[in-house]
Amino acid sequence: PTIKGLAQSDVQYDGSSLRIAIVYARWNNTVIDALVAGAVAKLKERGVKESNIVIETVPGSFELPLACSRMIAGSHVQASSTVPDLLGGLSFSGSLSPPKAPSRTGTPAPGAALNLPKQPFDAVIAIGVLIKGATMHFEYICDSVSQALMKIQLDTGVPVIFGVLTALTEDQALERAGLGRGASKGHNHGEDWGLAAVEMGSHVRRWAEGKFV
Amino acid sequence: PTIKGLAQSDVQYDGSSLRIAIVYARWNNTVIDALVAGAVAKLKERGVKESNIVIETVPGSFELPLACSRMIAGSHVQASSTVPDLLGGLSFSGSLSPPKAPSRTGTPAPGAALNLPKQPFDAVIAIGVLIKGATMHFEYICDSVSQALMKIQLDTGVPVIFGVLTALTEDQALERAGLGRGASKGHNHGEDWGLAAVEMGSHVRRWAEGKFV
Amino acid sequence: PTIKGLAQSDVQYDGSSLRIAIVYARWNNTVIDALVAGAVAKLKERGVKESNIVIETVPGSFELPLACSRMIAGSHVQASSTVPDLLGGLSFSGSLSPPKAPSRTGTPAPGAALNLPKQPFDAVIAIGVLIKGATMHFEYICDSVSQALMKIQLDTGVPVIFGVLTALTEDQALERAGLGRGASKGHNHGEDWGLAAVEMGSHVRRWAEGKFV
Amino acid sequence: PTIKGLAQSDVQYDGSSLRIAIVYARWNNTVIDALVAGAVAKLKERGVKESNIVIETVPGSFELPLACSRMIAGSHVQASSTVPDLLGGLSFSGSLSPPKAPSRTGTPAPGAALNLPKQPFDAVIAIGVLIKGATMHFEYICDSVSQALMKIQLDTGVPVIFGVLTALTEDQALERAGLGRGASKGHNHGEDWGLAAVEMGSHVRRWAEGKFV
Amino acid sequence: PTIKGLAQSDVQYDGSSLRIAIVYARWNNTVIDALVAGAVAKLKERGVKESNIVIETVPGSFELPLACSRMIAGSHVQASSTVPDLLGGLSFSGSLSPPKAPSRTGTPAPGAALNLPKQPFDAVIAIGVLIKGATMHFEYICDSVSQALMKIQLDTGVPVIFGVLTALTEDQALERAGLGRGASKGHNHGEDWGLAAVEMGSHVRRWAEGKFV
Repeated sequence: PTIKGLAQSDVQYDGSSLRIAIVYARWNNTVIDALVAGAVAKLKERGVKESNIVIETVPGSFELPLACSRMIAGSHVQASSTVPDLLGGLSFSGSLSPPKAPSRTGTPAPGAALNLPKQPFDAVIAIGVLIKGATMHFEYICDSVSQALMKIQLDTGVPVIFGVLTALTEDQALERAGLGRGASKGHNHGEDWGLAAVEMGSHVRRWAEGKFV
Repeated sequence: PTIKGLAQSDVQYDGSSLRIAIVYARWNNTVIDALVAGAVAKLKERGVKESNIVIETVPGSFELPLACSRMIAGSHVQASSTVPDLLGGLSFSGSLSPPKAPSRTGTPAPGAALNLPKQPFDAVIAIGVLIKGATMHFEYICDSVSQALMKIQLDTGVPVIFGVLTALTEDQALERAGLGRGASKGHNHGEDWGLAAVEMGSHVRRWAEGKFV
Repeated sequence: PTIKGLAQSDVQYDGSSLRIAIVYARWNNTVIDALVAGAVAKLKERGVKESNIVIETVPGSFELPLACSRMIAGSHVQASSTVPDLLGGLSFSGSLSPPKAPSRTGTPAPGAALNLPKQPFDAVIAIGVLIKGATMHFEYICDSVSQALMKIQLDTGVPVIFGVLTALTEDQALERAGLGRGASKGHNHGEDWGLAAVEMGSHVRRWAEGKFV
Repeated sequence: PTIKGLAQSDVQYDGSSLRIAIVYARWNNTVIDALVAGAVAKLKERGVKESNIVIETVPGSFELPLACSRMIAGSHVQASSTVPDLLGGLSFSGSLSPPKAPSRTGTPAPGAALNLPKQPFDAVIAIGVLIKGATMHFEYICDSVSQALMKIQLDTGVPVIFGVLTALTEDQALERAGLGRGASKGHNHGEDWGLAAVEMGSHVRRWAEGKFV
Repeated sequence: PTIKGLAQSDVQYDGSSLRIAIVYARWNNTVIDALVAGAVAKLKERGVKESNIVIETVPGSFELPLACSRMIAGSHVQASSTVPDLLGGLSFSGSLSPPKAPSRTGTPAPGAALNLPKQPFDAVIAIGVLIKGATMHFEYICDSVSQALMKIQLDTGVPVIFGVLTALTEDQALERAGLGRGASKGHNHGEDWGLAAVEMGSHVRRWAEGKFV
């Protein structure tokens, strides 16, 4: 029997107070769609509020690290700019005008978004699907992206979940998104990434307070 | 059917307020010329003004990262030095004397260039064509260049589009520049890079204001 | 005869004043359990107090470096917050409320934990088991994790013991945890990691005082 | 017909005001000698003054990055210490005593050297010849050296020309130094490096002033 | 005839004023012993005083970079703490109590050591022997260690000599330590590392003063 596999945590981490960002690249979109959906489903299952899930997109996987980095920084800008105006007005309405780029989450009720201060992201999930091609593009993108996603989490202290499939064939990618064309449809790894984001976001908050299990 | 391919964004990003730099290496120039032309065409299609497209050249791909880094820094120097002189004169005419190095963009009208303050670059496209040779030169250059271009975008916050072909054969390079010698001429990847520069430049501006979709 | 093998130190390093953290990933848990147990056994054999062994868990090996980094930082927060209250009270009781996540160490007596100031970690052991699969996931995780664990020890000055098995087969992993299914059960590498943590923790304290052998 | 090859710049960059350092490793010296000579010849052809060419040596290629880094730093020390003494004396004569290590440039006239303030290096050429051997030494040295030379130019802003041959055979190295033993003697890559140093030194000065072509 | 090989410097660098650290890992100790002895012999041959050679040990090669980093830092602590007490006493005797860890250098006369201020290290030699095994451990340790040793010398400005054998077989390691079991005993690379340490230590001192050959 195989010894392989992830042992799920005994603890059900509570995501109800967490804010999570997902950023995905648009290459191999069929697979991406399933992975993003899997991640979102598990975030919600763990109690993350839909209004606390931010989803952005970039062209390719090489753009994922910059997106993570700038989105984390931007969430701090947003957090400090959405402190309720004590004088009774909302001075930041301009900066919260309806965005022009597409969102895969449902549109949040504008009123709610305007009235709640926004907190920095507790974790970011970076999702991409790289498939080996004829040139060496695959190898150099995989390498630089994986090193950079690691660097960002160390530099910012915010967990960055590695949601990048580095597949040698299309079938490998499909199977890891629960879309296998063979006997088994496979397991949707996006679900693992959603769970990992909630767990790591919880751990990091606790460790920041000097608490250990 | 293949699942591979880039899903174009639903959004047509507007480049009319963006300033974009292109820097290209001169190895394998036939391919380079097509890639640069493809990138410029898409920048213009998205509304980037010709006067806001800066094109520079370096000898080889190992020089691309330093060029990106120094050009981004230089664009900040330029931006601060081209604030219009409030006393009615132009004190910086010397620093905007006609450049001696060749440009692939048309010469901008000198008057316009002198009167408009210049803004820092919103994105840089680094274009090079590396083809596997007999030694291991290809591998070490590809590796250090891809890691460095990634580092620069994280360190500066300015998107650096990875326009480096890492091809094992000449035909692979030609096909990725729309110059294939076989049945298919292939797709000019320079076009993707132009579009990615406009998209990422737009995203980064928005994220910097703490706005998410 | 083979020349391979680790020459044990002539010195029995004393762990009685050291505080050591272990963080392990949950993939391939059978192997992980044995490795963690081996490390803990040697820590205790060298005199590390059970109350000075902190054990945390993360989903996968990609999460190990962030955990090391944040746990080291958190131990400094904890150290400064557990200075005994000179006015006779314990103002930090809230922050030492019973943790909710599972611990593999026995629960320390609450009173003892509350009364003793906590010191920063002298070393961290990062334990994970990676086994080669069909995609290139193994390679990119191994590479980014090993580089990041190295970076953390250089950046923080705290020894991070590389307890990550990078195995091509399940049998290789089992043998390195003393669980071999063949003629030899193999050597539990977790024991080496426990000894290395005590030795390196001792060295680093001495070097920090400008003392050399 | 091949598409490979470097397209020479249309511009003849002027090296007459530039100061360039060369540092070479001493492994495989026959090849090194030819490469250094090729680089020096092109520097002079572009107008770099002999007194502005500094040549140093280190044992192996692993030492090249530290040498580049320390030589760039040292050139700033030298530049600030050689400001002419306005009170009529030369207070720094001691620090310019005749060097003890060998130089491949002709000995400059001591008087001239003492009277001219020295400027920081505009570019550094790092020259080494690595040839694949039986162990993996070649791979790890090539990798760490290429990454480090890239890092130095990004950290200092000074172009570091990658003059390291990463050859699988001796013949490959000889051919890239113009010393081929076969039908073709090959092209001396040192010449390209000399030209690249002048070009990049010129670009970087211009970009630092916020000027683009 | 082969072109391979290291061309020895024409200059005999003088080590009489240098202080050099050696740190070695204990895996494959037979080879290590010979390499350390070879390095020490050449240090002494170049005039490095025995009291200026510090030798430390760590369990494995992954620990070498942290040791180099912390030992360099510690030597600065030591240098500032061993300034002779101008009031006639020796206030630092406690910190120079007899070390407990083993030393391969002879024990220096206590009086001499106490009376002489200690200087920071001019170079560090990191010695390890890695031999390819069944898992990928070899590759990831070699890679992270070589990158980290490079990083340390760039970050600290102190030469770190790469004394790590990355051998595919035991015989390769033995031959590079002068212990070959075949017709040739091979060359002890430790000797080269000792010479390189003296040469680089000399260069770095000179460059720091802005002096070039």
